[in-house]
Amino acid sequence: MNIFPPALERLIDAFASLPGVGGKSAQRMAFHILSLPDGEAEAFAEAIKSAKREVHRCSVCQNLTDSEICPVCESPKRDKSTICVVSDPKDLIAMERSHEYNGSYHVLHGVISPMNHVGPEDITVRELLARVGTGEVKEVIMATNPDTEGEATAMYISRLLKPLGIKVSRIAYGIPVGSNLEFADEATLFRALEGRREM
Amino acid sequence: MNIFPPALERLIDAFASLPGVGGKSAQRMAFHILSLPDGEAEAFAEAIKSAKREVHRCSVCQNLTDSEICPVCESPKRDKSTICVVSDPKDLIAMERSHEYNGSYHVLHGVISPMNHVGPEDITVRELLARVGTGEVKEVIMATNPDTEGEATAMYISRLLKPLGIKVSRIAYGIPVGSNLEFADEATLFRALEGRREM
Repeated sequence: MNIFPPALERLIDAFASLPGVGGKSAQRMAFHILSLPDGEAEAFAEAIKSAKREVHRCSVCQNLTDSEICPVCESPKRDKSTICVVSDPKDLIAMERSHEYNGSYHVLHGVISPMNHVGPEDITVRELLARVGTGEVKEVIMATNPDTEGEATAMYISRLLKPLGIKVSRIAYGIPVGSNLEFADEATLFRALEGRREM
Repeated sequence: MNIFPPALERLIDAFASLPGVGGKSAQRMAFHILSLPDGEAEAFAEAIKSAKREVHRCSVCQNLTDSEICPVCESPKRDKSTICVVSDPKDLIAMERSHEYNGSYHVLHGVISPMNHVGPEDITVRELLARVGTGEVKEVIMATNPDTEGEATAMYISRLLKPLGIKVSRIAYGIPVGSNLEFADEATLFRALEGRREM
């Protein structure tokens, strides 16, 4: 006997298909599931099903939500004339943690990446243009990641928006607060110098 | 809005409860699930349920199986008079990979560990004694891990079995095949010297 029972093998394979999970970790996870009380294993399976069933994209900003419109888009306190464009729901959460932004968002669900065959039509650029087209929007803040693909995506979208008379801005580059100049890379230092402000 | 929809939070929490999974990894896993086609997410949930439903312990050797008796115990080719005692189903798989062992097994499902409040009654010692009590068994090979708890467990069980007139042996310590003396620790070298054989 060289293998586990088929049902256990299937569970190990399922865990191994998750991002960042190797064969050994998948085994440990599967054994952990077997060691759970029946109710907890059932709850785990139910959590997968209900997340898949209930969570979908906000019809306005494309953020993940379990209602038709997400809480940010629904809130009358949020400024609908400013849209912060992020590539991922996790980035939206990070922005919200700063408690500094009071506008609305647009979640692209990816970045343009020719290497990975992701074009503008694969992310929610069309939905962003439709929102901007209503005339309510005054400024779009590009908050994609400061890497090659995030930059290219920000550049692409800004070129689409500018002819429409929309103000398009990019979040600032610089030294992270609390960090150490000594460990900052050249590109960041260059951008920090370039973006210096009068005190 | 600081958090994800509740259904997504529940899924992240479920993944975070797995061994070796931190908050960030759990988020990535949950997002991966959301990105799957409905059928695949459903299959993942079903894999959890069916593993939990179908996989249980072999009534003889306590190995995991989906039938009443596991393939090793059922096989007429395996020598039932020798029992190799391992702490974990994964160790049984490792032993089988060597293709050298033709006896049967006993899976303890743990080791005695007073620090973690695991006593002999929490592992399958009672079941092992019952098997040995039938008189069919001639030798018991202790193949628990060569660490403190594995040693203590092997010692404890051997003291229970010896008075019954059973031959109890321990797998050999020594230099692993293909390794380098230079990197072997002192304890292993000492055991390797102690266990030397005439050539």
